Amino acid sequence: MAIVECVPNISEGRRPRIVREIARAVERTKGVRLLDYSSDVDHNRSVFTFAGPPAAVARAAIALADASIARIDMRSHQGAHPRIGAVDVIPFVPISGVSMADCVSLAKKVAQALARKHKLPVYLYAKAASRPERVRLPDIRKPQYEGLAALIEGDWKPDFGPSLVHPRAGAIVVGARPPLIAFNMNLRSNDLALARRIAKEIRESSGGMPAVQAMGVQLGDGRAQVSMNLLDYTVTPLSVLWDAVESRARAAGVEVDEGELIGLMPLDAALEVAGSKLRLRQLERTRVIEGHFLE
Amino acid sequence: MAIVECVPNISEGRRPRIVREIARAVERTKGVRLLDYSSDVDHNRSVFTFAGPPAAVARAAIALADASIARIDMRSHQGAHPRIGAVDVIPFVPISGVSMADCVSLAKKVAQALARKHKLPVYLYAKAASRPERVRLPDIRKPQYEGLAALIEGDWKPDFGPSLVHPRAGAIVVGARPPLIAFNMNLRSNDLALARRIAKEIRESSGGMPAVQAMGVQLGDGRAQVSMNLLDYTVTPLSVLWDAVESRARAAGVEVDEGELIGLMPLDAALEVAGSKLRLRQLERTRVIEGHFLE
Repeated sequence: MAIVECVPNISEGRRPRIVREIARAVERTKGVRLLDYSSDVDHNRSVFTFAGPPAAVARAAIALADASIARIDMRSHQGAHPRIGAVDVIPFVPISGVSMADCVSLAKKVAQALARKHKLPVYLYAKAASRPERVRLPDIRKPQYEGLAALIEGDWKPDFGPSLVHPRAGAIVVGARPPLIAFNMNLRSNDLALARRIAKEIRESSGGMPAVQAMGVQLGDGRAQVSMNLLDYTVTPLSVLWDAVESRARAAGVEVDEGELIGLMPLDAALEVAGSKLRLRQLERTRVIEGHFLE
Repeated sequence: MAIVECVPNISEGRRPRIVREIARAVERTKGVRLLDYSSDVDHNRSVFTFAGPPAAVARAAIALADASIARIDMRSHQGAHPRIGAVDVIPFVPISGVSMADCVSLAKKVAQALARKHKLPVYLYAKAASRPERVRLPDIRKPQYEGLAALIEGDWKPDFGPSLVHPRAGAIVVGARPPLIAFNMNLRSNDLALARRIAKEIRESSGGMPAVQAMGVQLGDGRAQVSMNLLDYTVTPLSVLWDAVESRARAAGVEVDEGELIGLMPLDAALEVAGSKLRLRQLERTRVIEGHFLE
């Protein structure tokens, strides 16, 4: 069975009723399973994870975008996380019986459909990117919603739709990528400068570890957080990322309070972490009983 | 679909050809999947893991016993691990759509069939035990193969079969139990006394942690090992067991070289370890993408 995962992020994390209504748009799509959704009040942002056959997942992504654009007004949006629109990003992820190329063409179809339907700018990113400078999501999102209008007729010309920022919805970024792990580490400290320094040291863009994005954030309760995206856990294992942050925090006399997984992670990523804790050379899914009954 | 797991241990770990022949007896049984098998030269012992519908698993267990009894002679067996016979122990484990009671009755049927067929003593243990003092495998195995004859007409009267130790095959222990995790921790040290002290401190029988069996062993390369069975990872989590051994070794100035998983572990046990490393309150299988596509 062909299974694609889709993990859209929307710019609403403070009104649970609105988030539930948007979730229902996914659940109502036949053939698709909503696996998880969670909101972050500090980021004012929600992430949905759903999966199913490619065509059904495309329909669900469009239904989610429709429901979000109807309910979110970027003119009044505030939050700790960078964003470019009401539907900030829609990634398609190959899980089973589907290639990355399949997900790229799915992303392009959905991008074009959304640009036409809502008359807004849509950018392609990651494996679906049209240019090298649009591979990385932070690069595309750099002007954010507020700064996009000034740049959209220059380097920020969209891949689909008008060169005109949608007043309420902003723009959308759509793409295809390997499974991403959104993982935060909350420090037992309010030292935002420390979180920012650790983030800078570990992220790829500052010469840190490959496939790692990271930033320092201050939580509502005052704690400093290292907020990370691990773009490819086969390149930098999650356990290595954990140790890199923990050792730097400890060197500054600070313990890691807790980890926080946003959305889901692939089985093999979880097994890598377990294998590292148990100091096994490798913990393959065949060493797990249920691994033999997957498909 | 009803799935029972069976994890027999046999007293042969030094002749790979013999072990392969015994594995083939399982593979030839229709409906059963041989998930894993591995041999330990120091223990001179092999463990097989197979699974499938209850009746097929019972047939495979009998086929494995037949093949082992034909090839192993306990009169010349030597190894670091306690054992009572050529087919040392056959546990049935409920995995999916099967109750513990189903596995108990399966164990009794197989025990009776083997006692009749091979005319040897068979003991029931764990959830299938006929008496409280036969619940724990080490208690039943205490006299070992060499000492059983002296006790078999007294407290060691078997549950099935003659009160007469089979010269080549010894006796067999059959039962039903929750998933067991056989896990070793190899110390970066030859200090067998340390491994033994740690084992004593952590095992339930000496007042340590519940559902933990442990002993200190010296490996062929000289390293000291804490060899453990975790009888119920929902009672003592595997990560807690790891930390208990590691902290005691470190207090003695010794690092843990590596962990060693014998056979397989259940998915939820692996996720508990990953969740502890990542300091998540809990890592449920619903947080893993593939968890949603199991059955």
